[in-house]
Amino acid sequence: MNILVTYNYGEALFNDMAKLDYDVTYKPEKEVRDADLNGIDVLICYDPFKQLSDSAYSDLSYIILSSTGLNQLPQSVIDNCAITVTHNRYGYNQPIAEWIVMMLLVGFKQLTSLLEQHRQKQWRMNTSLLELTGKRIVFMGTGNIAAEAVKRLQPFGVDIVGVNRSGRRPEGYQKVYKMSQLAEVLPTADAVVVCLPQTAETENLVNAANLKLIKDDAVFINISRGWSVDETALCEVLEKGKFKLCALDVVKTEPLPAESPLWNFKQVLITPHNSWVSENRNSRRLEYIMENLKRIKNGEQLLYQANTKRGY
Amino acid sequence: MNILVTYNYGEALFNDMAKLDYDVTYKPEKEVRDADLNGIDVLICYDPFKQLSDSAYSDLSYIILSSTGLNQLPQSVIDNCAITVTHNRYGYNQPIAEWIVMMLLVGFKQLTSLLEQHRQKQWRMNTSLLELTGKRIVFMGTGNIAAEAVKRLQPFGVDIVGVNRSGRRPEGYQKVYKMSQLAEVLPTADAVVVCLPQTAETENLVNAANLKLIKDDAVFINISRGWSVDETALCEVLEKGKFKLCALDVVKTEPLPAESPLWNFKQVLITPHNSWVSENRNSRRLEYIMENLKRIKNGEQLLYQANTKRGY
Repeated sequence: MNILVTYNYGEALFNDMAKLDYDVTYKPEKEVRDADLNGIDVLICYDPFKQLSDSAYSDLSYIILSSTGLNQLPQSVIDNCAITVTHNRYGYNQPIAEWIVMMLLVGFKQLTSLLEQHRQKQWRMNTSLLELTGKRIVFMGTGNIAAEAVKRLQPFGVDIVGVNRSGRRPEGYQKVYKMSQLAEVLPTADAVVVCLPQTAETENLVNAANLKLIKDDAVFINISRGWSVDETALCEVLEKGKFKLCALDVVKTEPLPAESPLWNFKQVLITPHNSWVSENRNSRRLEYIMENLKRIKNGEQLLYQANTKRGY
Repeated sequence: MNILVTYNYGEALFNDMAKLDYDVTYKPEKEVRDADLNGIDVLICYDPFKQLSDSAYSDLSYIILSSTGLNQLPQSVIDNCAITVTHNRYGYNQPIAEWIVMMLLVGFKQLTSLLEQHRQKQWRMNTSLLELTGKRIVFMGTGNIAAEAVKRLQPFGVDIVGVNRSGRRPEGYQKVYKMSQLAEVLPTADAVVVCLPQTAETENLVNAANLKLIKDDAVFINISRGWSVDETALCEVLEKGKFKLCALDVVKTEPLPAESPLWNFKQVLITPHNSWVSENRNSRRLEYIMENLKRIKNGEQLLYQANTKRGY
């Protein structure tokens, strides 16, 4: 079988793949074109799709994505039942979960304002800092990333509430609401953490009406996709001073253009889609890729098969 | 019995104290002088001591401190066996424990550098961020504050190690070393958290020799007292670029003078002795004060009696 790999994992690893009796071709992702997929059975990649035409995938049986999200997949792949797609479902959950806990604490303790004081060499105690203990944290989306964050939040004595499609309650949540019950749950949140996949239902789900439901002094965190937040509506409420902290690791247009108004709000903290980074990202990604290469050879069910129609 | 209170807890509370059959006098802490202690049995205060002479305490039986630390007590009180001193042993542990977790995450994830990028409207992913999972956190001092932090760190999958006087191992620590074993434990730390009381043994304990033992890319956090850190030695290693983050909520001279070199190091984050602040600080403090006033009336053993000779 033939593999095309679009990231240079190094010779040792390509040799390991070859030992599993694959013919391995490496080509940098940006250089991949239709012709490179001729005769390829397995494509291991993040997003070469934008350079490929709909007819490029006819030989392909498997796409092993290095990402957790699937939103880069073109419709022609989603509609192609002959291609099995797997995604890196658990590869980045741990650092992102840590990121969520960090931003909750940074928000309630106003760390960005304390840092600004340091910059100005000002020693001025702030007696309005809050503690995380006792706060109500609402997770919009209760998938694997939220699960890891919820696990880490248990000893902080917080009230953990989820919102998802079905209302099904995973471990660690006091209560879970359906998406249709946002009007009931959002007004009770001290912090809202957006952990939503990029699907038709989640596009601009955090819109003017839903933003209005959230308390003005809540902490707002988005670590999933800019897709879920109506940024025009967000800017309107930020203009009025809403949110103690609005920590956006993801935005609609990445990189965020320098002229975006989002940079200018005092309560906004923009980070460059960075929450997933960890020194363990490569080893975790490789473990999943190698396991799936073994399973393909053995004719076994693959790890982390994506539901491309549902989008996660 | 007569109480002197040096913080204005409000009429309702002073009435509650009076209902316990105390004669309550309120005087702002800075205005308290020797004569105000004439006939006073119970002094409820933080630090009026600098304005008082050694002979001021002859009528006093109890000092109920609003602080956790005792270092403001004058020697004449420490030596006076007729005075029972209590301190607010658990009143600030929760916010400080949260602070420790926050600073560990801020350090490993280089948040201060990401904030600087935001200030410059730069979207530039940093692929060198680390995760907390798997790190070895060394607590110098394993008292009540450390205990609360250790509890919150459990689900992060870290290796938690303590250093204390006796080597006794409280719950949650993988291993605890004696202070005499610092040379063995400090070189293994990915993060060092100073949680030491201000005692004769802890003065400048973090000196040039001990700083040298810590890895150059460790995270260093002090939330207890500037007393324990030799700041000249610290500045010397900071000058050479030591520490991924050096988060100091406490320093030798507070407020930290604008001309201190500590403000200028890129890896240093100065906060104004702020980690203890929480919206629950007053209710927790009052609960302890009122409980002790009841116990004094009932002739019972007081809550959180301090060992003034040991200093905690």
